[in-house]
Amino acid sequence: MQYTNTPIVSLVGAGPGAIDLITIRGLRAIRKADAILYDALIDKSLLDEAPANIPKIYVGKRCGKHYAKQEEINSLLVDYALNYGHVVRLKGGDPFVFGRASEEIAHVESFGIPVTVIPGVSSAIAVPANQGIPLTQMGMASSFWVMTATKRDGSFSKDLILASKSSATMVILMGVRKFLAIANEISKYRGGLTPVALIQNGTLHHESCSVDTLANAESLFKSVDISQPGIIVVGHVASEHPSFFEDEIQRVLRSAM
Amino acid sequence: MQYTNTPIVSLVGAGPGAIDLITIRGLRAIRKADAILYDALIDKSLLDEAPANIPKIYVGKRCGKHYAKQEEINSLLVDYALNYGHVVRLKGGDPFVFGRASEEIAHVESFGIPVTVIPGVSSAIAVPANQGIPLTQMGMASSFWVMTATKRDGSFSKDLILASKSSATMVILMGVRKFLAIANEISKYRGGLTPVALIQNGTLHHESCSVDTLANAESLFKSVDISQPGIIVVGHVASEHPSFFEDEIQRVLRSAM
Repeated sequence: MQYTNTPIVSLVGAGPGAIDLITIRGLRAIRKADAILYDALIDKSLLDEAPANIPKIYVGKRCGKHYAKQEEINSLLVDYALNYGHVVRLKGGDPFVFGRASEEIAHVESFGIPVTVIPGVSSAIAVPANQGIPLTQMGMASSFWVMTATKRDGSFSKDLILASKSSATMVILMGVRKFLAIANEISKYRGGLTPVALIQNGTLHHESCSVDTLANAESLFKSVDISQPGIIVVGHVASEHPSFFEDEIQRVLRSAM
Repeated sequence: MQYTNTPIVSLVGAGPGAIDLITIRGLRAIRKADAILYDALIDKSLLDEAPANIPKIYVGKRCGKHYAKQEEINSLLVDYALNYGHVVRLKGGDPFVFGRASEEIAHVESFGIPVTVIPGVSSAIAVPANQGIPLTQMGMASSFWVMTATKRDGSFSKDLILASKSSATMVILMGVRKFLAIANEISKYRGGLTPVALIQNGTLHHESCSVDTLANAESLFKSVDISQPGIIVVGHVASEHPSFFEDEIQRVLRSAM
């Protein structure tokens, strides 16, 4: 324990996965950290950039398994800031996109400890981009909507239906396990021919991307690893993925037989 | 002119403004560039990171003044790749968020020149975050919708109305000049008490942020520099901005008088 450093917390977005997609400012914060609290979805080798002898605490959550509850994380941030000084709270993607950053900020600031936020490349945008899927495209999609498909009680949100009725590209996070129900719900409004992509391990070397139409969601879902998180993209932009066109030819051939 | 380098184009997102919010991978690309074609909205000192003797060409567009048309940019990318080798196409924010990246990729690839995309921190997310405005927040906003308010002919898009009817945080780009009309249109569905923020020069030292309710849009608009682009955020999360609460007290005092 040391009591000499000034307590401060930096919320740092680690980016979508690959280690070199963190920002310069984010990397500098890690190198100057006195303690790191990190999430599940970051590249572990980022931790090697931090001083060797500081505490590096895993506080990730994944697929409902809460290794640490939000309240515990909030408390840990304060404890480590008071005892060590500069705490880097490292989160996958961007801290402010479903990252519960506001809750952590409010809790830490209530102890008079200053908080800085260092944004990261959001997985919601960069993971589709890395697969050649743009979220907006002239003449094809003029907006995009980033959401979780279901509310905390598991029901579909009203916004999912409004988004389905729009022409926005839909980016759905934390929806892999409910993929079939989501695809079915959206196809009621957008039609079964709407392209959909499901991307896992985005920007990492074992990245995978499956594309098809909403009507063929069942066939797409067979190639998905439901133990891993993923990002679902619904809209015509998903047809920009190179494999969509090859699959389309197969679909036409099948329907002609 | 040199003809020894292999032609390749990297589309690089420079991030929201501040120079150290570019990614490690993006900075490396700049340092290894043989030519740079850059946009209006990036920090010019990023160009100092590139080799001193390479061409650095400004191809930005701003507020309707097209210094270079998209077709010209497409052609320049191919010309510089063939004549110099590694061209870095540096764009503000993220290349795939209203960045017309797909058009540039399609054109360059049609010449057999490979294209890589290096994502950036999107201004749509990071600029509000830097002002303490989260786009999602437990119990307040569970999704966000990034859009331009008007179509190319100047009319409101149907999606603006669907978004207004939803509970999504709305992030509106390229809407500063039409701010009053936009605020008026949205308030028909969300009500005049909905908080709104307008941020200009995001993440830079002369950043400004005005917050108020949609009903007070005219008063907010007086503090805005319409010669500069800006980001509009509509939704309850805008009330997270520190100055919203102070303004709220003034509003209550005024209404009590």
